[in-house]
Amino acid sequence: VIDVAELRVHCFSVSLDGYAAGPDQSLDDPVGVRGHDLHQWLFDVPALKQHLGLPGAEDAPPADPVDERLYLAGEEGIGATIMGRNMFGPVRGEWPDHEWRGWWGEEPPYHHPVFVLTNHPRPSFQQGETTFHFVTDGIEAARDRALEAAQGQAVRIGGGTATIQQYLRSGLVDRLHLALVPTLLGDGERLFDEVDQAADDYEVVGMEPSTSVVHVHLAKKAAASG
Amino acid sequence: VIDVAELRVHCFSVSLDGYAAGPDQSLDDPVGVRGHDLHQWLFDVPALKQHLGLPGAEDAPPADPVDERLYLAGEEGIGATIMGRNMFGPVRGEWPDHEWRGWWGEEPPYHHPVFVLTNHPRPSFQQGETTFHFVTDGIEAARDRALEAAQGQAVRIGGGTATIQQYLRSGLVDRLHLALVPTLLGDGERLFDEVDQAADDYEVVGMEPSTSVVHVHLAKKAAASG
Repeated sequence: VIDVAELRVHCFSVSLDGYAAGPDQSLDDPVGVRGHDLHQWLFDVPALKQHLGLPGAEDAPPADPVDERLYLAGEEGIGATIMGRNMFGPVRGEWPDHEWRGWWGEEPPYHHPVFVLTNHPRPSFQQGETTFHFVTDGIEAARDRALEAAQGQAVRIGGGTATIQQYLRSGLVDRLHLALVPTLLGDGERLFDEVDQAADDYEVVGMEPSTSVVHVHLAKKAAASG
Repeated sequence: VIDVAELRVHCFSVSLDGYAAGPDQSLDDPVGVRGHDLHQWLFDVPALKQHLGLPGAEDAPPADPVDERLYLAGEEGIGATIMGRNMFGPVRGEWPDHEWRGWWGEEPPYHHPVFVLTNHPRPSFQQGETTFHFVTDGIEAARDRALEAAQGQAVRIGGGTATIQQYLRSGLVDRLHLALVPTLLGDGERLFDEVDQAADDYEVVGMEPSTSVVHVHLAKKAAASG
């Protein structure tokens, strides 16, 4: 009985020139060079600062109401998260050990099961209130396991770019909320790259400008579902 | 005394996935397959229908005021237009003859000198109130000739994509007004392709949503001018 629950992308920032991450991801730049510009609108939402326990949360100015509502929409009613390995960390290839436990410290902000797509098996582990599982048999298996773990709630596809592209290509993601950021990155990872089929499968169902970005909502076309 | 006048791009439509024209330009599809979706917002502006003498101009519903204002901004105070050869017509290579006189019939909508970038010389000719000149010595020569012909007014770079990219790469265009259209094309010509330098030279100075598109204004950074 998993056909009510959905796979969704929320708050995924894309630059005006189409990049969802800057080039050269590293430990210092988890979202790539200049990638922080993309996410500033989100870090300006006080509810996110509170959620992450960032300094200045109490005396932060009120968020743009559209930004805040859409940030919260990506947090509420989500029972599991799927992410690509690069979103989990900078390690590539075989895991040399199990020391890397994510970018997020002692208490990751998920508080629900997270499924990490990887070609390299690793045992599940718990960090704070979040359990990380490693899925080596593909995006459909990850979807099935995440939907089961979500227990009727929605599954959020966190990113990064390559992971969302895989789900777009296969038509498995139901809804996407992108934040179009008025900046040019010039280089990096393009979201709409080699996802030609998505142009047939998905349509823009809404645009909501805030003071900082333009939120764009895409949904799978009814005719393309199934 | 050409430093007051400007080179500008107006009303240049780009899809959500970054394409400024669909694939496969032809006589039947001057803007490529699905390219018409990109320009619909513009053809819904009654002033454009009147300008082009299209049917239904009188009883057209009022345009979105933002769309109308920005359409008019691309028509007023423009003394010359530069365009690429593909915007002038579908002929490639040497001109077999001089029969092709543009897409626009007896009275092209320019009413001022138009400079067509091409590698293949052709004599200037007049069509209605528009004179077409053919420039074979590059984008800077075209700029110089167009600014002189504009007699103190601005020069509009009409398109297509490759022409705007050339001017972006060289930093010669001063301002760009893009219309971000909430549609996915999936394939075609990307505006922000191999124009990495533009990310350093240009910045978004404004976004104006209308009921149909999001208008984005870019300008050359002060530090990058010269």
